[in-house]
Amino acid sequence: MDFATFDSARRDLIQVGAAFHARGWAPATSGNFSARLGGGDIAITASGRHKGRLDEAGIMIVDAEGGSIDGGKPSAETALHLQIYRLLPHVGAVLHTHSPGGVAFSRAFPASTAWAVEGHELLKALPGHTTHEASVTLPIVANHQDMAVLAASVAPHLSTQPAPPAYLIRGHGLYAWGRDVAEAERVVEALEWLFAADLAERQYRASGARA
Amino acid sequence: MDFATFDSARRDLIQVGAAFHARGWAPATSGNFSARLGGGDIAITASGRHKGRLDEAGIMIVDAEGGSIDGGKPSAETALHLQIYRLLPHVGAVLHTHSPGGVAFSRAFPASTAWAVEGHELLKALPGHTTHEASVTLPIVANHQDMAVLAASVAPHLSTQPAPPAYLIRGHGLYAWGRDVAEAERVVEALEWLFAADLAERQYRASGARA
Amino acid sequence: MDFATFDSARRDLIQVGAAFHARGWAPATSGNFSARLGGGDIAITASGRHKGRLDEAGIMIVDAEGGSIDGGKPSAETALHLQIYRLLPHVGAVLHTHSPGGVAFSRAFPASTAWAVEGHELLKALPGHTTHEASVTLPIVANHQDMAVLAASVAPHLSTQPAPPAYLIRGHGLYAWGRDVAEAERVVEALEWLFAADLAERQYRASGARA
Amino acid sequence: MDFATFDSARRDLIQVGAAFHARGWAPATSGNFSARLGGGDIAITASGRHKGRLDEAGIMIVDAEGGSIDGGKPSAETALHLQIYRLLPHVGAVLHTHSPGGVAFSRAFPASTAWAVEGHELLKALPGHTTHEASVTLPIVANHQDMAVLAASVAPHLSTQPAPPAYLIRGHGLYAWGRDVAEAERVVEALEWLFAADLAERQYRASGARA
Repeated sequence: MDFATFDSARRDLIQVGAAFHARGWAPATSGNFSARLGGGDIAITASGRHKGRLDEAGIMIVDAEGGSIDGGKPSAETALHLQIYRLLPHVGAVLHTHSPGGVAFSRAFPASTAWAVEGHELLKALPGHTTHEASVTLPIVANHQDMAVLAASVAPHLSTQPAPPAYLIRGHGLYAWGRDVAEAERVVEALEWLFAADLAERQYRASGARA
Repeated sequence: MDFATFDSARRDLIQVGAAFHARGWAPATSGNFSARLGGGDIAITASGRHKGRLDEAGIMIVDAEGGSIDGGKPSAETALHLQIYRLLPHVGAVLHTHSPGGVAFSRAFPASTAWAVEGHELLKALPGHTTHEASVTLPIVANHQDMAVLAASVAPHLSTQPAPPAYLIRGHGLYAWGRDVAEAERVVEALEWLFAADLAERQYRASGARA
Repeated sequence: MDFATFDSARRDLIQVGAAFHARGWAPATSGNFSARLGGGDIAITASGRHKGRLDEAGIMIVDAEGGSIDGGKPSAETALHLQIYRLLPHVGAVLHTHSPGGVAFSRAFPASTAWAVEGHELLKALPGHTTHEASVTLPIVANHQDMAVLAASVAPHLSTQPAPPAYLIRGHGLYAWGRDVAEAERVVEALEWLFAADLAERQYRASGARA
Repeated sequence: MDFATFDSARRDLIQVGAAFHARGWAPATSGNFSARLGGGDIAITASGRHKGRLDEAGIMIVDAEGGSIDGGKPSAETALHLQIYRLLPHVGAVLHTHSPGGVAFSRAFPASTAWAVEGHELLKALPGHTTHEASVTLPIVANHQDMAVLAASVAPHLSTQPAPPAYLIRGHGLYAWGRDVAEAERVVEALEWLFAADLAERQYRASGARA
């Protein structure tokens, strides 16, 4: 499989950072975005940068174990990106966002272990989905500051067949992926749209009466 | 009637894609936009493209039966565009969007066969409406992956006199049209605004008490 | 009092059109914006134009009775702009917008004759307000397609001392004004913000429990 | 500690004004933004300017007592900025915004003396927070037109150990700060995101049923 060159990966990650920050999905320097490179290394956003105003210095390279190759400071959450690349060999990009919608759902229903919707045409934007007569289920794992603990709770969900398109960390946000940045971006846009549509549907029903 | 040249159609479709993607109405490469050309062919967005970042290669040409003229890959939903051009000879552009609002309404009231509002001044933005003392009704049809089945359920609604300005596919989105891209864009903007105003009105009422 | 030159008025009106369309307050070519010129004429947006993409041809000149001076087609609502200029001599700009929030309120409470809030710091953005310990009241008039009827119901509200900063037409939208386009823009931004804050406050209260 | 030069402070304040106005957090010329300069003076937005379209003339300099150094007209709220610089020596920038969310909360619960959330990962965007297993509390003070009275009610909250990252003025808005404009911007983005997530969480719970 062909993965990206560093130049094209950097260009794509800067673009997706600007797009996601504008939507409110990467506030306050949060969020991190990565792409697998041809040689096995990973291009990833440096820690603490404003994700909507990334420049070339905002994208660094780590090796497959997370060691910095070019001196930049990797995010603490690099381990979660590396886990996805390790367990899902087809994946070429990982995007981690913080949306009010996804986080709100996970906190409103603290006992739920998954978010699921069915019947939406937009499910077809998710890899492997070819019909709306289906459902998507995102696992929800508990947040933890120890990346090893967090990764351990994620691991079983990345081993199911088929794997989900993304997962939610309760009170934290979304990890999504794809074969390249474009596909991962599509997954995030679709899921964020589904969060919004789901909440609007609930608001319509709660508003009662008239069909 | 004068229909568009390919160059102007392409320019208009690229512009409307950027505008609609920015609003969240064409997420995850969904949505498709077309314009009828002078010779009877149709300019239409190629399948799988990011609708907010269309370039010249993102707009292709099909003939009136949906056959690709320039080698591009037409969307599966091309048939729904062609049906509108066939049944409504005055139509010069068709825009298909996925808005959380329209989809949410259609799912919140699964038994409803139409969405309707009355009394809004903005009804006058819809072709044929000259007063707010009227109503607009959008048919809602069930979604289906077989375009022939879907088109068959749409057909009666395009044959009413007068035809509606658009229709909703449950859990999927909106098909709207106009004599050109500008008019079709106006119809989409008006209907999306009406979805938003309708939900806000319900939220005001549900919040109770004080006028 | 110094009113605008046509060149500066046109520039300001084009800019405010782009800003308001981006906010969703001038959908589907709706809305109209005007400024009083030094000679007594009025620069006003031509009818049927996309208000977010106005160019120089999109701004026309009418005289104080509404007659076109440069051949452009004035909006049917020009009479409402002229009424404000006639009854409020200090006014140098009038902006008419269609916001889902303001319209939703007016429809949710069909018997109300005014929208009012008190205690907001942002009241100070409205001319004549210097403290938050006050209130603002916008009259609500019924919509009508006959501009003479509509203007007659507006007239008493423009004659109160002091005049309100704006008025709402039920199910239609907002008419706001100021000594120039900048002040009128400030009034619209403040009122739209207040509509949004008011609805959010109701949603917080309706969500119950915890302060 | 190194504070900013006037040129870089001005550039940063213009940028943050554009960003915040676009979000709807600085409507109708409201809001004010400042940065402490190397010599002890303060660069601050001039009064009455459109905060989304600041130019170089829109940023002025006052001394540590609020006296204008360059002839510009300081905002009445300059005293609140100076208070923060006086009581919190590490602070290099103060940003005052008006968000519908923060204001709505403070008005919906008029007896509350603080806004607090706990358990959010995004708490880590606030200085001093390194885990989500914590909470943030913003004091809420009553609004007042007399800056001396307002400052007196703020003072105790700036003297707690540790100080909060920001405070809310009921029915008015948010005062936030950081060691520089970038950190203060991060604090505002994080708090606005938390207001939005908090309201969405309540809406999910209020919509009942299904986890």
